[in-house]
Amino acid sequence: MPVLLDTQIIDEIVQRALLEDVGTGDVTTLLTVPDGIEATGEFIATQPGVLAGMPVVERVFHRLNPKVRLERIVKEGQHFDANAVLAQVYGEARALLTGERVALNFLQRLSGIATLTARFVETVKDLPVRICDTRKTTPGLRYLERYAVRVGGGYNHRFGLYDAVLIKDNHIAVGGGITQAVHRVRHALPHTMKVEVECATLEQVQEALEAGVDIILLDNMTLDQLREAVRIAKGRAFLEASGGVRLDTVRQIAETGVDAISAGALTHSAPAIDIKLELRLK
Amino acid sequence: MPVLLDTQIIDEIVQRALLEDVGTGDVTTLLTVPDGIEATGEFIATQPGVLAGMPVVERVFHRLNPKVRLERIVKEGQHFDANAVLAQVYGEARALLTGERVALNFLQRLSGIATLTARFVETVKDLPVRICDTRKTTPGLRYLERYAVRVGGGYNHRFGLYDAVLIKDNHIAVGGGITQAVHRVRHALPHTMKVEVECATLEQVQEALEAGVDIILLDNMTLDQLREAVRIAKGRAFLEASGGVRLDTVRQIAETGVDAISAGALTHSAPAIDIKLELRLK
Amino acid sequence: MPVLLDTQIIDEIVQRALLEDVGTGDVTTLLTVPDGIEATGEFIATQPGVLAGMPVVERVFHRLNPKVRLERIVKEGQHFDANAVLAQVYGEARALLTGERVALNFLQRLSGIATLTARFVETVKDLPVRICDTRKTTPGLRYLERYAVRVGGGYNHRFGLYDAVLIKDNHIAVGGGITQAVHRVRHALPHTMKVEVECATLEQVQEALEAGVDIILLDNMTLDQLREAVRIAKGRAFLEASGGVRLDTVRQIAETGVDAISAGALTHSAPAIDIKLELRLK
Amino acid sequence: MPVLLDTQIIDEIVQRALLEDVGTGDVTTLLTVPDGIEATGEFIATQPGVLAGMPVVERVFHRLNPKVRLERIVKEGQHFDANAVLAQVYGEARALLTGERVALNFLQRLSGIATLTARFVETVKDLPVRICDTRKTTPGLRYLERYAVRVGGGYNHRFGLYDAVLIKDNHIAVGGGITQAVHRVRHALPHTMKVEVECATLEQVQEALEAGVDIILLDNMTLDQLREAVRIAKGRAFLEASGGVRLDTVRQIAETGVDAISAGALTHSAPAIDIKLELRLK
Amino acid sequence: MPVLLDTQIIDEIVQRALLEDVGTGDVTTLLTVPDGIEATGEFIATQPGVLAGMPVVERVFHRLNPKVRLERIVKEGQHFDANAVLAQVYGEARALLTGERVALNFLQRLSGIATLTARFVETVKDLPVRICDTRKTTPGLRYLERYAVRVGGGYNHRFGLYDAVLIKDNHIAVGGGITQAVHRVRHALPHTMKVEVECATLEQVQEALEAGVDIILLDNMTLDQLREAVRIAKGRAFLEASGGVRLDTVRQIAETGVDAISAGALTHSAPAIDIKLELRLK
Amino acid sequence: MPVLLDTQIIDEIVQRALLEDVGTGDVTTLLTVPDGIEATGEFIATQPGVLAGMPVVERVFHRLNPKVRLERIVKEGQHFDANAVLAQVYGEARALLTGERVALNFLQRLSGIATLTARFVETVKDLPVRICDTRKTTPGLRYLERYAVRVGGGYNHRFGLYDAVLIKDNHIAVGGGITQAVHRVRHALPHTMKVEVECATLEQVQEALEAGVDIILLDNMTLDQLREAVRIAKGRAFLEASGGVRLDTVRQIAETGVDAISAGALTHSAPAIDIKLELRLK
Repeated sequence: MPVLLDTQIIDEIVQRALLEDVGTGDVTTLLTVPDGIEATGEFIATQPGVLAGMPVVERVFHRLNPKVRLERIVKEGQHFDANAVLAQVYGEARALLTGERVALNFLQRLSGIATLTARFVETVKDLPVRICDTRKTTPGLRYLERYAVRVGGGYNHRFGLYDAVLIKDNHIAVGGGITQAVHRVRHALPHTMKVEVECATLEQVQEALEAGVDIILLDNMTLDQLREAVRIAKGRAFLEASGGVRLDTVRQIAETGVDAISAGALTHSAPAIDIKLELRLK
Repeated sequence: MPVLLDTQIIDEIVQRALLEDVGTGDVTTLLTVPDGIEATGEFIATQPGVLAGMPVVERVFHRLNPKVRLERIVKEGQHFDANAVLAQVYGEARALLTGERVALNFLQRLSGIATLTARFVETVKDLPVRICDTRKTTPGLRYLERYAVRVGGGYNHRFGLYDAVLIKDNHIAVGGGITQAVHRVRHALPHTMKVEVECATLEQVQEALEAGVDIILLDNMTLDQLREAVRIAKGRAFLEASGGVRLDTVRQIAETGVDAISAGALTHSAPAIDIKLELRLK
Repeated sequence: MPVLLDTQIIDEIVQRALLEDVGTGDVTTLLTVPDGIEATGEFIATQPGVLAGMPVVERVFHRLNPKVRLERIVKEGQHFDANAVLAQVYGEARALLTGERVALNFLQRLSGIATLTARFVETVKDLPVRICDTRKTTPGLRYLERYAVRVGGGYNHRFGLYDAVLIKDNHIAVGGGITQAVHRVRHALPHTMKVEVECATLEQVQEALEAGVDIILLDNMTLDQLREAVRIAKGRAFLEASGGVRLDTVRQIAETGVDAISAGALTHSAPAIDIKLELRLK
Repeated sequence: MPVLLDTQIIDEIVQRALLEDVGTGDVTTLLTVPDGIEATGEFIATQPGVLAGMPVVERVFHRLNPKVRLERIVKEGQHFDANAVLAQVYGEARALLTGERVALNFLQRLSGIATLTARFVETVKDLPVRICDTRKTTPGLRYLERYAVRVGGGYNHRFGLYDAVLIKDNHIAVGGGITQAVHRVRHALPHTMKVEVECATLEQVQEALEAGVDIILLDNMTLDQLREAVRIAKGRAFLEASGGVRLDTVRQIAETGVDAISAGALTHSAPAIDIKLELRLK
Repeated sequence: MPVLLDTQIIDEIVQRALLEDVGTGDVTTLLTVPDGIEATGEFIATQPGVLAGMPVVERVFHRLNPKVRLERIVKEGQHFDANAVLAQVYGEARALLTGERVALNFLQRLSGIATLTARFVETVKDLPVRICDTRKTTPGLRYLERYAVRVGGGYNHRFGLYDAVLIKDNHIAVGGGITQAVHRVRHALPHTMKVEVECATLEQVQEALEAGVDIILLDNMTLDQLREAVRIAKGRAFLEASGGVRLDTVRQIAETGVDAISAGALTHSAPAIDIKLELRLK
Repeated sequence: MPVLLDTQIIDEIVQRALLEDVGTGDVTTLLTVPDGIEATGEFIATQPGVLAGMPVVERVFHRLNPKVRLERIVKEGQHFDANAVLAQVYGEARALLTGERVALNFLQRLSGIATLTARFVETVKDLPVRICDTRKTTPGLRYLERYAVRVGGGYNHRFGLYDAVLIKDNHIAVGGGITQAVHRVRHALPHTMKVEVECATLEQVQEALEAGVDIILLDNMTLDQLREAVRIAKGRAFLEASGGVRLDTVRQIAETGVDAISAGALTHSAPAIDIKLELRLK
């Protein structure tokens, strides 16, 4: 999926965020800042990172006042150092003051995800492996968080429960084993949809291969198991490793030869990058 | 604000989260798990923490199938150890499988916030000081994240821009100084609303006091400055310290005698607590 | 709160009003007035009053046709005489004809509230007292009606149940008396939120003062009681009188020295000001 | 139209009203009233009137807590005296306290409209004439206000611009006169829809009659003009008088023999009936 | 009702359709077509028909990119031959590719309805009879389908259950016969609303006439019955025939002298007209 | 995808349909049918077909009155003859009368699609080929129409533009040929998503195969071309034929050995099956 955002999807998320924060009005700004005063601002990072989220920032201010202009200095996906000026913003002081916090809340979180993703990607950059996200995203922000993962150089997994099949242990248990579960699924599934099976043992990998699945999720396997799974299945199914993926383990996992590594930590625990907006009123 | 959640506000957030994840249907579960099969599940923590979010989990499953029952073992706000069983869930296997990820996404994030908050609170528990949240919350989840802060023993700051006045440096600059800005605000403000002013120097504290503000935000002050501010202003205005608040600095800040300490980190960077749902199909 | 309206909040209310009235189309206008015909119109008052609501009128026509222009002659909050021309409107005849009724429904009601408020305010203008609104507003229009009160020179009370505490008789009864109720509230409340207590007797006023409340609502007290309450409490808490407030009683109440007088009548029973739109087709 | 309300339409209006008032929570009640406490309440009128709105009150409490029960003592449309107990309500104290104001805001306004309507109807009760409402309703509440008019014994006019044709002076002017305007409309209109023409002179009445309209709106005519219009047109078109309709003029207008009299005052300026809810906690 | 569409009603329908089809993004186009590439397209009919729906097509592309321009060659309501170029479209390639299917889905369906309607209308064009639609429309698309019927030269019946009365057999049965049912309805109905009664026999026609109904629906009558109904009732009520209306029967029915013929087939079974969009990228 | 419907997705569609038809109330029923009267009804087919849509019918009545019961006689997907009783319905007469048309509008359309699909499926039932739908569905009803296709024995294609890649001629043209377009897509696409390419020639089929696509859409090929494509590509990619698919051509196409045949006609032009609801009031 490309590193692109749809303006109308962003706008819906932005509108909800502004409603939450601004409610019936930014009383302080309305009472202290006269109508018509202009201001400029600089987004400044106070720690290094990878930038993600400026298109969202742009829509936050746009919704408050369509005349606000944002000039980007650092591009989405680019590394920046501490104290870097990321972008400049010009426009009505009221809009800038009212939108500041919401804009930063988006920017800090998305840059946090992009930054963490980029560190994972960097760690395995010479290996033919994808770093992928999972469904462990913030409720309501999956669209944006997946974007931040791509910006950081990572790849997306399925969006949700509706656009790909992932047969897990419980599905297998009820379904009467991998073979039968895959068979039932394939029989009814649109031919446009892939089937992935979660395997915890090499026997399951073997069974999944024979059932003709598209993707095998190697769940919480040891490095030895992963290597053996690669030996058996590489090229016959897409191999994805998952479980215990951290910055200090990801390279070893990648070196087993799997095609992809998926890590919930990219989205559920990436610390926010500290970015501030310094405003100057004219 | 009490440690309470409004079912209808939760339901709107839950509905959005389920729509995002489930979309037009959980294909895997629909194709592998027959209608009518029952299951039970246990929410198990894989690391210690403080529980927050079970009322949200309850509504996630309720929306998928109103007959699902949740029995809580650990209470909201209670500490738990690694491997603790937090709750049990009973009901239609399909509903449990489909709702699992969304339920965990809420539970892990909210417990993460409650856990971090509890650590801050614990650090200063013998001192008469409040640990407060800020507006640095996840867009769309402020209502729930504020709840998690309370569950962790913390206190809430204003909800948003509409329910209290907080005059910051830029408002002061445009407003012609603290005295005049406070005067203008007081003149027009509903008498039910408080006025807080952000001060970076002791001179500003003095000016704010004389202007008769309700709350003074001591922004990024040194410990010496904080102590001096307390000496000048304690009892005449509510004193809130902010800036550079971390687990290793919070106690020193608290010992200066301020009334409250607000920390964005409670919500913007609390790592998720790892919790899993172990299902057994009947 | 300033005499300002947020365009996006207005637009949501306006959209609902237009949907209600126009539904699947203004059949009469579509069938009798050709596309492209221009018209001009004058808003003319048929009785004297204080103007409020033109920003809403502007959005009504804007939504029907963004090219419609409104030129204001009388400003918001200004007194006008019978037969005064309040504003002129130019644009597509269809938009003017279709929006006429909805525009007038808003304008007449809001001007009615501003006019009544201004009469109350005028009556006590030499006294240091605020005339305040209450929560007795029209369901769905509170945001606009509070605005009209400000336009008329009045002040707003809390917006709703969520942005300030007002402890009434029943809360006191369950809460175990004023002292204990206030204590419980203060302990849990965000420090940004004020506490008001409704008192029906001077003993309650005394107890509320000692409990350290911010505001005391003197409910349905006699003038003597009010005077005594002022003697006891003035300067220690903000004093608000309520109950039996009419144009013929408000001055006496104000003269007792209370800080504010709140009157539900401002919003729940203000008669509409009769205003018409005279259109001329070109 | 029958004196009936659709639960789902009410619920949408009620939900908006509750959201407006309760927002993120009734802080006072949550902090002072423990969960699980029961209460009973009595709706008591402090002035005489005609009751309208109890079905809405019921839905307000139902939404806050489905177990709240309302027992009606006075029926919708029935006259009550000052101090009459209108209904009793039983249920969770929190729900009753939180919903009280919204419930009363609806009840007082709708009873105000029903009461005023009933006075108009009473004035002409021995004459074969309908008292009708207009489109001069509160934006967003037309559905409920029309209901209150029916409850008071009045009749509804068209709901909005979409469900009947009413050709006014400006439509006539652009449309090239009554005859041509009616002709164009009839040609294109669904055969299920009626055509009404606003006439200011007897010549226009004559022309409208010849054009075959269904209803003639006799706009701001003198009593003599009305009588003459009745002489000419009675039985050939439905005759509706409008303009200057007040309690002291309505009987004279009715005596001219018109079929209906429409009065904006029924809805735009009916003063609220004062009703209170007296709660007793158990 | 005129052959007109309201942009805002269309936009809501269009938005829902785009959300349904595009969801979180048109992956194929985003990944293969670079940003900024322009394209032109031609809407070409592959079979003859009557055009309806270009205003909807315009809004589909407008929503994806407001700069897309549509130049119409064939007008709404005009007949076209196979291979006719109906319109040309210019703009961003991505918008054209993403909107193509939704645009065609609307255009083909609406042109299908207009085409079928035009065939019915053509068949009876020399007779003074209206061809009308019914409520047998596609759920969610009634507004647009009624438009297509008008574009095809047909007329609309009532929009729904709320804007006219149609008393059917079951209403009559419960209501105690036609006379009593009509009486009850007339007594309570707004005077702006018409009353239609469904009659299956000539006796019922007689009774309906005497009850003074506005419209009689002659349901599933034989040609002889229709002729007799016309003889009895023509000019005293509007006569509408319904049931068994097909292209090969409509002329005979029309020749009986009824005022209108309503046919569900116009909307529930009109086959789509095959139209394609041929794009050329620049 | 299983033959299942999600109640909450149906309810949203049903609510929109009822709002469209019932609006502010079913005036006729409210005025003629007293509250509390019960009725029973039978859904009777007037022509043979395959049933689809009863779960939607159930929700229509449920929303009007949750006590209405539906007893199915014919199952979803089962063939029925003319005059068959499909189901019986019991409950409040008003709910049955008000919901009748909307219920039938859904039932007739969905049964129409299931019936047509079943005819296609029957024609090729001894061959290993899938009959598939397309995106040529009614805007707003895709979810239900895809269900009806499954009920009729058909298969679904991708839901929309977001859940699978389908590279068409224009994408190929801009993308620099099949090989390069597929390469670019594969590089960025989630590994859970399939890639399909539309091919008009055998050379393109060859190129697509070499590019490693998952599915090849054989667009408008002759039977000879199809047979040759099968010879080249069967087993190496999933082969889907499209274009010119009619009941009289589908068998020949199937006999070429393709894996699936997709036909827009299933959804865009299936004539409604005539079904009526016969009500008896008690």
